[in-house]
Amino acid sequence: MLSDIEIADAAELRPVVDVAKEALGIDPAHLVPYGHHKAKVDLGYLQSLDDRPLGKLILMTAMSPTPAGEGKTTTTVGLADALSALGLSSMACLREPSMGPVFGMKGGAAGGGYAQVVPMTDINLHFTGDFAALAAANNLLAALIDNHLQHGNTLGIDVRSVDWKRVLDLNDRALRDVVVGLGGTPNGYPREDGFDIVVASELMAIFCLTESWADLKRRIGDIVIGYTRDKTPVTARELDAHGAMAVLLRDALAPNLVQTLEHTPAFVHGGPFANIAHGCSSVVATRAALRLADYVVTEAGFGADLGAEKFVDIKCRKSGLRPDAAVVVATVRALKFHGGVEVPDLASEDLGAIERGMENLARHLRNVREVYGIPCVVALNRFPGDTDAEVARVVELVEALGVRTYPATHFADGGAGATDLANGVLKLLENAEGLKFSFTYPDELPLKEKAETIAHRLYGASIVTWDNKAKRRIERLEKDGYGGLPVCIAKTQYSFSTDATLRGAPTGHDLHVREVRLSAGAGFVVLVCGDVMTMPGLPVTPAAARIDLLDDGTIVGLS
Amino acid sequence: MLSDIEIADAAELRPVVDVAKEALGIDPAHLVPYGHHKAKVDLGYLQSLDDRPLGKLILMTAMSPTPAGEGKTTTTVGLADALSALGLSSMACLREPSMGPVFGMKGGAAGGGYAQVVPMTDINLHFTGDFAALAAANNLLAALIDNHLQHGNTLGIDVRSVDWKRVLDLNDRALRDVVVGLGGTPNGYPREDGFDIVVASELMAIFCLTESWADLKRRIGDIVIGYTRDKTPVTARELDAHGAMAVLLRDALAPNLVQTLEHTPAFVHGGPFANIAHGCSSVVATRAALRLADYVVTEAGFGADLGAEKFVDIKCRKSGLRPDAAVVVATVRALKFHGGVEVPDLASEDLGAIERGMENLARHLRNVREVYGIPCVVALNRFPGDTDAEVARVVELVEALGVRTYPATHFADGGAGATDLANGVLKLLENAEGLKFSFTYPDELPLKEKAETIAHRLYGASIVTWDNKAKRRIERLEKDGYGGLPVCIAKTQYSFSTDATLRGAPTGHDLHVREVRLSAGAGFVVLVCGDVMTMPGLPVTPAAARIDLLDDGTIVGLS
Repeated sequence: MLSDIEIADAAELRPVVDVAKEALGIDPAHLVPYGHHKAKVDLGYLQSLDDRPLGKLILMTAMSPTPAGEGKTTTTVGLADALSALGLSSMACLREPSMGPVFGMKGGAAGGGYAQVVPMTDINLHFTGDFAALAAANNLLAALIDNHLQHGNTLGIDVRSVDWKRVLDLNDRALRDVVVGLGGTPNGYPREDGFDIVVASELMAIFCLTESWADLKRRIGDIVIGYTRDKTPVTARELDAHGAMAVLLRDALAPNLVQTLEHTPAFVHGGPFANIAHGCSSVVATRAALRLADYVVTEAGFGADLGAEKFVDIKCRKSGLRPDAAVVVATVRALKFHGGVEVPDLASEDLGAIERGMENLARHLRNVREVYGIPCVVALNRFPGDTDAEVARVVELVEALGVRTYPATHFADGGAGATDLANGVLKLLENAEGLKFSFTYPDELPLKEKAETIAHRLYGASIVTWDNKAKRRIERLEKDGYGGLPVCIAKTQYSFSTDATLRGAPTGHDLHVREVRLSAGAGFVVLVCGDVMTMPGLPVTPAAARIDLLDDGTIVGLS
Repeated sequence: MLSDIEIADAAELRPVVDVAKEALGIDPAHLVPYGHHKAKVDLGYLQSLDDRPLGKLILMTAMSPTPAGEGKTTTTVGLADALSALGLSSMACLREPSMGPVFGMKGGAAGGGYAQVVPMTDINLHFTGDFAALAAANNLLAALIDNHLQHGNTLGIDVRSVDWKRVLDLNDRALRDVVVGLGGTPNGYPREDGFDIVVASELMAIFCLTESWADLKRRIGDIVIGYTRDKTPVTARELDAHGAMAVLLRDALAPNLVQTLEHTPAFVHGGPFANIAHGCSSVVATRAALRLADYVVTEAGFGADLGAEKFVDIKCRKSGLRPDAAVVVATVRALKFHGGVEVPDLASEDLGAIERGMENLARHLRNVREVYGIPCVVALNRFPGDTDAEVARVVELVEALGVRTYPATHFADGGAGATDLANGVLKLLENAEGLKFSFTYPDELPLKEKAETIAHRLYGASIVTWDNKAKRRIERLEKDGYGGLPVCIAKTQYSFSTDATLRGAPTGHDLHVREVRLSAGAGFVVLVCGDVMTMPGLPVTPAAARIDLLDDGTIVGLS
């Protein structure tokens, strides 16, 4: 089979104005083109659609993944394509890839095989400049903080408390912990600082939860950058930073329209991490897609314990959006992985491991249906090595749980490989199961109890413990009036617990909160459980070494 | 008079595809649109024009400026507009503004008054993403350097010698001197580092001197990032960084087409500092413009001792481009400033000061004509406070030097205010003065003698002195085979000397070289004389504080 970039380069793309016009009825006057195959859709136009009926919103989530990922993005694309092929009006809503992994180890994030969004190289590189705009706005605030300290610190900021980090869209471990302001009087006050990757920033989360330009500016103004010496929060608004930052994000806030290999329209917009932030593409894009198409498939990061929980408890809670159905992606290899098979051995048939690993998928399905109250099916994303016996056993075991399961081969076959899945989703949407959408916890529960509710209801943990500093911080946040915010749990995606090696469906474990961070602009409180990487490093041989530009301008080596 | 942004926002722009088609004969298929009023022109198409005859190249330079600047950009736009209004095919080639000054003190750099390029807000903010692409490529190399150190340092790089800095397109003094790699083993080896503003980077200089994608990759590969412990230069090529960096700059290398307020086409592409780098817009854009238009007006930074010298000795030397004429911008206030008047008093009529200050302009004119061998006229850029007597005295004094002088009012009147200037330039182009274009020094002169030649011939200095470290470095560069490169002198723009307070036309001074930097990829050796700012700071009240986004998406406060 060809590589992702070979498939993408060989694709015949349609002009994005034609995709917009024919699939979505958008007049070219409402598009801001970026080349011939990418466009932003005018925000004012999208807001004018507010009285149109809403399409059906289908959430793509997954069981706990293996390190290779289980194919949520490809399944999102494959399902949207399959719905289109059935003659229905459908769209995909995806996150924008970060350039860090593109030049690091993981590669791009525009789908794969015959289930990709294109132009693949553009989407994986600068795209329409959204991440660059976010970095500029984020770093302008950082510069304004240090500038305020330099010019007399009239707000009385405690320099030790400043926790607004700088960002780059790059994997660069050397920037995780730095000291800035060295070199003497003209260069400011030395202080400890650090850089995060753009996707880990609060500003990215704000961007993805924002409804409008006014809301964007308000949320940015609410950002707490640190504290005064008497522990009063200091906001971006007090630094007069929010207007200029909003200006830098003005154009970026309009969603980016592209197409799949099969010309299904897709919004690719925003891309927050699913640990430190909520891991969903932008509210602006999802809301617009629901006005433009009858079926909208959107993805939330990592497994259903992380991305889907935050989709429900943060994105839906904040925006009023409601999913009509969910698809939980499972793979034979992930089931075997949770059944105790190590990565190098995943290629061998092992029905016993599948049976053992099923407890992981079963808990995710229970959470989606019984906690979030979302009707769901399972998409079994087939890989070439999966045996028919393995696939049959998965179907049998999942259906015994009362959930329909559809093997799908969209990676190799495009939308045609997901036709059964598409029909299954349509059937699910027609025959509502009587489930009632619900948040995991109510707004008014204290922050600590929110964490306990998630830990007990979703993770199977028996207790939540706190580092002393984390405990003090969360008590302070309750006092400062942030107790009504939802929590955003940052933990490993490989386990329901905080221990990546604890596979399957562990119970009785301890959810230990190491650190508490306030994202006042985004509107949530991050509970850091275990190690969370907010600035990845590069491997011994980074992908950058094989990415190259030929003399004729051809790009090679992207994956 | 309205503010710059009010004038720009009130302008009726033509679709960039129409400007391209009607003014330049470019088919829409060769454009990559960024919205409706900006486009990149396909590089392959531009290269296909190589057998077309060349238009006339007009260099816009200036006398030594006051801190407020004398209006080279507005005069470039005004002259291009005036030539267009005469029915001629003309283009302007300008540098892209940096966002640092936009949010700092100076403001934007898209011209001013009725001599602007538009869309003004786009050009002053993210534009087509070129600077973001440069920052990403620059910082990828930095990450790859630290990653190489972390994973065993097989090249044997001396960590103390690494002088490839990171960059942001921002004024941020706290990042001038930093320590990176703190936090223990996972984060690498601690080392001293710093951030420059993008426009001060070698990569920006490379970008602006590059001829093609292949040339871009070769130059990036030649970048010397530091030395091994036995003093061998280490290049970006040895780190396998050049291919990926070139990929990040692939699209950026195509020039950006916009229009003036009067719909004259303009390339706005690249923007290197005129001190640490050569201060001219891109070779790709200038070369393309000369194939597309009969008259191309392009600007070099600061006064003719800095920007024009580098235009001649670096840009022309490297590219083979040759200017047909030069316009030297003078102002009444700059003449008075060089005649000893302080900034707060510049508004008062002072004919004596003009006479005294004339020695500054006279030396620039002599340099342009007798050293560079470029026929020239003076554009006297009129300001509202200039008295008729002052203007008449300037004309009289300059013409006594044998140079025609044209008062111009394009700031207030657009192209119509520069009609006399345009006619004067046309006359100059018709009646070549028998001058022969020449570099200030030949390639084969040793680096030290190159500096001496510039100091003596252009600056009126009597000797060149060297810090010990600078002397050792330049001797080392000769030994390492870099002696054939041109030099790029970084000094204050306010004086022919390195002392900003020495106005007029000083003689007998000492050009002291404090530091030597190799820009092996760009192809020059930087001689730092005096203090050179490669990362500006923000003022007490930065422009960011008054820049704002209204609820309807209107941007206010840009200047």
